Amino acid sequence: MRIGELSEKSGVSVATIKYYLREGLLPAGELSRPNQASYDDGHVERLRYIRALIDIGKLPITQVREVLAMVHSPSPNIHDALGTALQASVTVRGTASPEAQKEIDELVVRRKWQVSPNAPGRRAAAEVITALRQLGADDLVDLLDEYAKAVERIARLDLRFVRERSSPEAMVNGAVIGTLLGDSLIAALRRLADEHVSAEAFQT
Amino acid sequence: MRIGELSEKSGVSVATIKYYLREGLLPAGELSRPNQASYDDGHVERLRYIRALIDIGKLPITQVREVLAMVHSPSPNIHDALGTALQASVTVRGTASPEAQKEIDELVVRRKWQVSPNAPGRRAAAEVITALRQLGADDLVDLLDEYAKAVERIARLDLRFVRERSSPEAMVNGAVIGTLLGDSLIAALRRLADEHVSAEAFQT
Repeated sequence: MRIGELSEKSGVSVATIKYYLREGLLPAGELSRPNQASYDDGHVERLRYIRALIDIGKLPITQVREVLAMVHSPSPNIHDALGTALQASVTVRGTASPEAQKEIDELVVRRKWQVSPNAPGRRAAAEVITALRQLGADDLVDLLDEYAKAVERIARLDLRFVRERSSPEAMVNGAVIGTLLGDSLIAALRRLADEHVSAEAFQT
Repeated sequence: MRIGELSEKSGVSVATIKYYLREGLLPAGELSRPNQASYDDGHVERLRYIRALIDIGKLPITQVREVLAMVHSPSPNIHDALGTALQASVTVRGTASPEAQKEIDELVVRRKWQVSPNAPGRRAAAEVITALRQLGADDLVDLLDEYAKAVERIARLDLRFVRERSSPEAMVNGAVIGTLLGDSLIAALRRLADEHVSAEAFQT
């Protein structure tokens, strides 16, 4: 198909498609004539994938490029490959106090979690704890272990669906989608569940 | 204190502070001399709050303004006030298919969740389901009810900490912080827990 049809099928504008082509996120089409490239369903799929990472996963373009590279040549060790998939999506933006970092490291030990010492999730969690303490929400930090327990249940679901996939590539791909889109799904479901428990508590 | 000290104490640059003043996010300082405003600890706190909403909650400035307005004059009905707090943080960006919308609406009925028909979380969840189906991750959607169950546990923790706060203002404030920073905390803990369950599954 030509670029106009690719745009229509994928819902991505021609200008944006051209940008992704220039940035190397989307492989070039086959040249059917000197001035005209032809695209296939693989391009439609790839565009949907990119848009999901950007719109729902909220990844910047540079990280989209990393994720695509990784999904297309996953490490032969599946745990390592999944680890790279997880880490691609952790953005570190604020500051983490040494105390908060220690709180998270101790939580990991208490929960007996096998997590590498330099996992970016440690730092990301410590940043949130730092902000919560600065905002005086120590009462929320008090529930940290309870939140960790609830999240562990979610992680077991994450693993269940990744494990059942047929190939290492499909597993890594699933880990990327599950990690990024999963955050948004969990956040949206949490809004609904929060409204429900609030209704139960305050409206009877 | 003068603006330079306010900047040092809050970690926010003078230029950004001036921007927040112009945008009305930060109340003006008291004029100590015709050309010199004086700020207090309330300004430091407010700046930390704004930065947390932006850096960790990833809210755009316009939503920060809405949240601040709401926290400072919460509705007298606590359930309504909490509802507004929850809804401020749901951003709708993609498209939701009618089928996906129906799946979420049916999930709400199955879980016996009391959720208003126009809750933005319904739409946000349907968008993620739409994207997951487009990406061929139907195997993840199959686990929707399990995820909803796990998230309900998290919601009960959310409520516990909001409930224990002393005033309606403190509760609404807690709901905002807990909702926005909570998403980031859950995402970060999820990375750690995912690494752990992957290590358990693939590294023994």
